[in-house]
Amino acid sequence: MELKKGERIDELHRNGYRIIQNTGKFCFGIDAVLLTGFAVVKEKETVLDLGTGTGIIPILLEAKTKGNHFTGLEIQEESVEMADRSVKLNCLEDKISIVKGDIKEAVKLFPLSSFDVITSNPPYMNNKNGIKNDLQPKSIARHEILCTLDDVIKNTASLLKVGGRFYMVHRPSRLPEIIVTLKKYKLEPKRIRLVHPYIDKEPNMVLIESVRHGKPLLKVEPPLIVYESVGKYTDEIYDIYGYNQ
Amino acid sequence: MELKKGERIDELHRNGYRIIQNTGKFCFGIDAVLLTGFAVVKEKETVLDLGTGTGIIPILLEAKTKGNHFTGLEIQEESVEMADRSVKLNCLEDKISIVKGDIKEAVKLFPLSSFDVITSNPPYMNNKNGIKNDLQPKSIARHEILCTLDDVIKNTASLLKVGGRFYMVHRPSRLPEIIVTLKKYKLEPKRIRLVHPYIDKEPNMVLIESVRHGKPLLKVEPPLIVYESVGKYTDEIYDIYGYNQ
Repeated sequence: MELKKGERIDELHRNGYRIIQNTGKFCFGIDAVLLTGFAVVKEKETVLDLGTGTGIIPILLEAKTKGNHFTGLEIQEESVEMADRSVKLNCLEDKISIVKGDIKEAVKLFPLSSFDVITSNPPYMNNKNGIKNDLQPKSIARHEILCTLDDVIKNTASLLKVGGRFYMVHRPSRLPEIIVTLKKYKLEPKRIRLVHPYIDKEPNMVLIESVRHGKPLLKVEPPLIVYESVGKYTDEIYDIYGYNQ
Repeated sequence: MELKKGERIDELHRNGYRIIQNTGKFCFGIDAVLLTGFAVVKEKETVLDLGTGTGIIPILLEAKTKGNHFTGLEIQEESVEMADRSVKLNCLEDKISIVKGDIKEAVKLFPLSSFDVITSNPPYMNNKNGIKNDLQPKSIARHEILCTLDDVIKNTASLLKVGGRFYMVHRPSRLPEIIVTLKKYKLEPKRIRLVHPYIDKEPNMVLIESVRHGKPLLKVEPPLIVYESVGKYTDEIYDIYGYNQ
């Protein structure tokens, strides 16, 4: 497979899968990997990933679960094309579709109430600091330039089956807004896990499972600790990355 | 001081203070103690504790902080009288008032927007399982028989100064409802700490600071771990209890 300028191929430590990345433009972070460790996809279920970027979430979920089909929605043309090549690189064309489109118009692209599972690693920073016109790929991934938290959750609620599950990774600092918005669209938060860089540090990520029309009762899981010491992941993180296989 | 049947006097490990408890009826738990370790009361501030029970929260906060005056509101006559004797036992009549009254009518008992700080260790369990007619003191403390979460938060929002702080301890399973209700009454969640019995266990308590009309930005603190091993508290818990003084 021919690579474009700035691209490289990385090993995923799962099923021998590999992924194409472009360090200057489209790269995945630990956030996406942890989300695939937190999300539950059961046999024969269908999954949609909103804002899929490199395609890392559908590719890892295909490797880790018995889900039937995985769709990645992405707005940036270059990223869509690159993720699509990663799908082909792993011969996963039958299992994974990368679709070009806008999260804000996702309800026009897919049948309503049709997915068992929706995942998203959306932009974390709300766009109130004047970078609205910055359309660099990294800015679009990090800031709510092209879509807001409300857009992601509203479209998720419409596309998920009743009883379907939504998995999102986000910043703990926005948890109140996240919870209020989920509940506004009848997505009930059912399970939360906070991710702490070290055991005695504040969490810098939160993983959330919500269920469409679920009954209110939240399970907060034990903390997920990333580093045991400087440069050394905890066993759980090595497991999620697949290094211990 | 004469004790009534079933009562005993316990040491508080703070300023030599002691407290009267009745193990069959009114006792405080670790929840109330942890709340006094989490709450911030600054010099000259006034504090109201909603549902004060034994009076443990105002007594410990008086010992730990430079707050100016502390009021404990309690609906159960026997508990009011016992808490009042604990205040006298420690010669704190000038600093602490125990007031008999209903949280649901708290806005009629105190001036609106008058407190710097409000604290509460309310009943955790929502009363949907038919124990509505159980008026045992322990049931009233544990179940939402005489007041609901909404009652506590609504009255808090009315009695707190703008910019004033509300500290509550509750169950993590009800966090989504807590956050939605706080935000409904313009109390912005600003700081959260989850309390885990052991480092690798789910949290069973959550401590929350909210600010009336605060700006949205939540700080989630490192986990508070209660036990290092069976029967042995962590150093932080011994500190909060005052055993290391």
